[in-house]
Amino acid sequence: MERPRHQSMAKNTSMRWRLPLVCLLWEVAMIVLFGVFVRFGAEADAHWEEEKREMNLTSDIENDFYFRYPSFQDVHVMIFVGFGFLMTFLKRYGFGAVGFNFLLAAFGIQWALLMQGWFHSFKDGKILIGVENLINADFCVGSVCIAFGAILGKTSPIQLLVMTLFQVTLFSVNEYILLNLLHVKDAGGSMTIHTFGAYFGLTVTRILYRPNLEQSKDKQGSVYHSDLFAMIGTLYLWMYWPSFNSAISEHGDAQHRSAINTYCSLAACVLTTMAFSSMLQKKGKLDMVHIQNATLAGGVAVGTSAEMMLTPYGSLIVGSISGIVSTVGYVYFTPFLESRLHIQDTCGIHNLHAMPGLIGGIVGAITAAAATEDVYGKEGFIKAFDFTGAYQTRTPSIQGGFQAAGIVVSLLMAFAGGAIVGGILKLPIWGDAAAENCFEDDVYWEVPEDEESDVYHMHNPDKPASP
Amino acid sequence: MERPRHQSMAKNTSMRWRLPLVCLLWEVAMIVLFGVFVRFGAEADAHWEEEKREMNLTSDIENDFYFRYPSFQDVHVMIFVGFGFLMTFLKRYGFGAVGFNFLLAAFGIQWALLMQGWFHSFKDGKILIGVENLINADFCVGSVCIAFGAILGKTSPIQLLVMTLFQVTLFSVNEYILLNLLHVKDAGGSMTIHTFGAYFGLTVTRILYRPNLEQSKDKQGSVYHSDLFAMIGTLYLWMYWPSFNSAISEHGDAQHRSAINTYCSLAACVLTTMAFSSMLQKKGKLDMVHIQNATLAGGVAVGTSAEMMLTPYGSLIVGSISGIVSTVGYVYFTPFLESRLHIQDTCGIHNLHAMPGLIGGIVGAITAAAATEDVYGKEGFIKAFDFTGAYQTRTPSIQGGFQAAGIVVSLLMAFAGGAIVGGILKLPIWGDAAAENCFEDDVYWEVPEDEESDVYHMHNPDKPASP
Amino acid sequence: MERPRHQSMAKNTSMRWRLPLVCLLWEVAMIVLFGVFVRFGAEADAHWEEEKREMNLTSDIENDFYFRYPSFQDVHVMIFVGFGFLMTFLKRYGFGAVGFNFLLAAFGIQWALLMQGWFHSFKDGKILIGVENLINADFCVGSVCIAFGAILGKTSPIQLLVMTLFQVTLFSVNEYILLNLLHVKDAGGSMTIHTFGAYFGLTVTRILYRPNLEQSKDKQGSVYHSDLFAMIGTLYLWMYWPSFNSAISEHGDAQHRSAINTYCSLAACVLTTMAFSSMLQKKGKLDMVHIQNATLAGGVAVGTSAEMMLTPYGSLIVGSISGIVSTVGYVYFTPFLESRLHIQDTCGIHNLHAMPGLIGGIVGAITAAAATEDVYGKEGFIKAFDFTGAYQTRTPSIQGGFQAAGIVVSLLMAFAGGAIVGGILKLPIWGDAAAENCFEDDVYWEVPEDEESDVYHMHNPDKPASP
Repeated sequence: MERPRHQSMAKNTSMRWRLPLVCLLWEVAMIVLFGVFVRFGAEADAHWEEEKREMNLTSDIENDFYFRYPSFQDVHVMIFVGFGFLMTFLKRYGFGAVGFNFLLAAFGIQWALLMQGWFHSFKDGKILIGVENLINADFCVGSVCIAFGAILGKTSPIQLLVMTLFQVTLFSVNEYILLNLLHVKDAGGSMTIHTFGAYFGLTVTRILYRPNLEQSKDKQGSVYHSDLFAMIGTLYLWMYWPSFNSAISEHGDAQHRSAINTYCSLAACVLTTMAFSSMLQKKGKLDMVHIQNATLAGGVAVGTSAEMMLTPYGSLIVGSISGIVSTVGYVYFTPFLESRLHIQDTCGIHNLHAMPGLIGGIVGAITAAAATEDVYGKEGFIKAFDFTGAYQTRTPSIQGGFQAAGIVVSLLMAFAGGAIVGGILKLPIWGDAAAENCFEDDVYWEVPEDEESDVYHMHNPDKPASP
Repeated sequence: MERPRHQSMAKNTSMRWRLPLVCLLWEVAMIVLFGVFVRFGAEADAHWEEEKREMNLTSDIENDFYFRYPSFQDVHVMIFVGFGFLMTFLKRYGFGAVGFNFLLAAFGIQWALLMQGWFHSFKDGKILIGVENLINADFCVGSVCIAFGAILGKTSPIQLLVMTLFQVTLFSVNEYILLNLLHVKDAGGSMTIHTFGAYFGLTVTRILYRPNLEQSKDKQGSVYHSDLFAMIGTLYLWMYWPSFNSAISEHGDAQHRSAINTYCSLAACVLTTMAFSSMLQKKGKLDMVHIQNATLAGGVAVGTSAEMMLTPYGSLIVGSISGIVSTVGYVYFTPFLESRLHIQDTCGIHNLHAMPGLIGGIVGAITAAAATEDVYGKEGFIKAFDFTGAYQTRTPSIQGGFQAAGIVVSLLMAFAGGAIVGGILKLPIWGDAAAENCFEDDVYWEVPEDEESDVYHMHNPDKPASP
Repeated sequence: MERPRHQSMAKNTSMRWRLPLVCLLWEVAMIVLFGVFVRFGAEADAHWEEEKREMNLTSDIENDFYFRYPSFQDVHVMIFVGFGFLMTFLKRYGFGAVGFNFLLAAFGIQWALLMQGWFHSFKDGKILIGVENLINADFCVGSVCIAFGAILGKTSPIQLLVMTLFQVTLFSVNEYILLNLLHVKDAGGSMTIHTFGAYFGLTVTRILYRPNLEQSKDKQGSVYHSDLFAMIGTLYLWMYWPSFNSAISEHGDAQHRSAINTYCSLAACVLTTMAFSSMLQKKGKLDMVHIQNATLAGGVAVGTSAEMMLTPYGSLIVGSISGIVSTVGYVYFTPFLESRLHIQDTCGIHNLHAMPGLIGGIVGAITAAAATEDVYGKEGFIKAFDFTGAYQTRTPSIQGGFQAAGIVVSLLMAFAGGAIVGGILKLPIWGDAAAENCFEDDVYWEVPEDEESDVYHMHNPDKPASP
């Protein structure tokens, strides 16, 4: 059975040759570039036995794999199940949410291994990779998943792949500026992942503004079970966020501390989110949109400072505030952004990633500026901020200044990059759907004809009934 | 569209000011108490480098984080996804199941960090926390999630928060009595978590008895997809239970052994559950309620003894028996409890946690009483039961007696505490729903109007059709 | 309300006495055999303290538990949630998919612990188990889950248990031949798990050919939300596959390398799957069947070689090819197999496991044959292929030959074993459903009467409406 309304589509949304071409060409490019550049790092190479002797390691357990692999897998789940399912809340865009997130992330991690590798793991003409590179690639793609949230339901898979290509590139440049040039700490990525990713995505969706989007308004909501699917995404993001923020911290106390701070922040965030969700609704009912999203703001907002001596009560404060800001954002800012600034932000990433990301950057700057040898210990102080070599003379307040500069750089990169990429995505060659077909899987997916849609037709007498 | 039936609600269920007030006040209290008391433990503090030297540790991998963090994350998933989704089986209470579980657990872990911290990690006026505290906080909250199962669908979120406050407190006292005063072993919490949590919850639901609950009988069942959502909860609980029972065991063999015993017990439990589920139904059909719940009894029932030398075949026996007891409980005891004892146990926690918890306590007492130096080795024997210091002279049979005493204490605490808390929750100020609106998300949540509910109305000619 | 069509069933599908009998008898057998044979290995036994001294280990972290437990848990999730939910795509067979997978896997791991234990962990009359045995038991059961995919919806739970009993036995024999007699490397099981499991299952479904299966054609499809449930299975399999392929590799570099190779292969596989899924559909729309399945072929296809020096770009190539082969298989081979060879392969395991498994075996043979001391290092070379003792003189090319022989042996075992077991399952005593009742949970499960099915009835005027 054919759905007649799609026969009237003005735009050609067929992916038949475009999508395969892009996927296959790019995958071939990946193979060639990996062939030229990517090799195993010392800890994953079969020469490890010799390496161990050289490094005076007595046990295989000292391999970085055992320090980071469990966290890597948690991060991996966050990217693919967490972000994927979080976006299944729309009633007829579950396939696109999970499936396109899968596609862009699978491409993005390959390209990120290269881009980040050139910047950070390049040695004698080769990129040497290990488990930390896998985590960083997942992190980089996380910023694309965030941006995807802003344009969810309004773009073709090719547009998403093009955006991924550019965003991963810009992410890596921005990350290099922050971590290497400004010597900024940002283990959980409040600035590099969330602030950059969110403002990038918001700029893109602004450029792609669709004036007639209310034509697909009936599909912009959720149904009962789609909200439950989304909660799977929410909970996996929430539960594994301590792993996210601690995954690439220094071995030992830093990883341990990051996990604890994040755990505390997220717990507090749930309570303030629930409080404001209920308070801001006339009848005091809770809104699933807030529970699905704002409860996560606490993880974003300690992304920079979690590995610092933020302390558990500091984390509770940050988490509490970010939950409030995020929930208020959903109620007041999102409609404002849409009506006044023409920013159509499908998932409300401004509330979940942009504002909490900024908070995270600021909290990180303050926490760094407030650091003392007394609190960290002499060695711990140097280790925590890597005040060695060229940075031996940096003081906490100077570090705080550089941290703040990192926020500004991330914002500028996001706006500039988003504007350029948005412009590219506006070209009429990518096969995006017409406004009335947004938020509808039927455009790019073979969708089963199920009872549910029969009912749907039945209740819409203006559409022909199913046979 | 408004659902008319709720306009006729006799009770005021609006949470608009009550819920935000409780959430915000309590979160502020948490911040203040954390500020006064909670600090990082030595292994999460930036002074770790000095600590390592003092403890003669040569590697960061000796940080407790690497021994326990993977298990912690598994436990975390069990609490939030496991318990949350297990309770989504009701057709119209999925938001409440996942969302309220999220709320109470997020509050509970904060309060548990304090309560358990005062009892177990208090040093020089500060509570020093590390990954083991996070696990214990999750464990403590697990007992609240269990009690939530008994009153699922019948209470307001404020009632749940009030219950959490008291139950966490009582849990911590009971745990202190068992672990410190009676010197009882209970790593997987058969007594402290399951027996206590379940009988506490059953007592609360008895006090909150609703004589007219059959008015919402049409909503007490499942629909096809809600049963599949519940299976997500079941499977995550089932798969990660070996982590649950081993998470806080001693490093090395004890963690290893706990995981193996639990794995075996759970495997056996599935087979006996399936057997009795089929046997006890007239046509031999399997019942999802049993598969969702009774298959987990094997994890509960080895909670005390898993770290002991229960042996794999011992685990199979315990798992087999608990699967049978639990399934029989669902078929015969639950209806009996409801009709005769007026205990309305929504999720059947009596079958999944109460009886298997008792079995677990008894098996633990027997296994401890039967321990010999021959089986454990001289050092292993002392290490397994911590027969050091004041307990140097304890014999296995005395230990078995104390283990048994632990069951009794847990039961008494549960009954007494449940009665008091039940009485508090009966006050008419908490905004719980009328009997005819139980098991209905619409009371406390903004629920999307989806096709499904349109159909529902269509099939209920006594209710106005949707426009 | 009774569904009338099932009253007309010609076959007796009642499980009331048969299923309980099999489950209980077999569980008793497990208890007896475990009692006689199974004990804790040295690292899980309470004598560990003495063991540590003997092995000169200074820290508990050297316990194998800490090297493998996180991977074990990931594998565990793949078997129970991964395979279970992957098969929930059918509109009315979700209970059977998740529930029967649960049942057969829970039995299978017990029997596998024994079978594999006798072959590999038998010492002084006892099977000594540790975390590696748990992983291997899960692996073994994985091959049964694969075979289950071919016969999904067409067999009774007893048939599945019988198949599990035999398949686990044959798997263990085949594994022994490959790993011990041929000294073949196959850490991720391309041959032992996937090739064997898939061709075994395909042979069984061929023997059980149902000529009238089109009578249940209306139930062989998916509905919108069942496709989303299936994506949960897909993603968990995809994300955790690096753990699967690295779980039992040697400590250190081998585990590290396996994870990286698998990560790369899977990422590439997603892109080629999407490309061909779109290309092979007239309108260029993506097909969820391909996304749910073919994206995983990359994990299967590096199962043998992942722990070798396949290199990241080699992994991308293998992943790319396997995605293409698998997708093409779904479009062209599956219909061919059904119409010409009478192989009714419900989940298309031929495309996801059989062909990629063969590719994996071949790639493994080539990678082994191409190994040099230069690439692996002198020590690494010996360690990677275990060229010690009797195998000291084996050359890479000879190893390659033995690897190839491993594929042939696995195929022969699968065909012969599948034919025998298929013959046993054809006996008319197992209570399988008639053709018109296949793919229908109602046969073996108590299914809730939900709105969905009301609608279903409404749209099927030949069936009585619900009251």
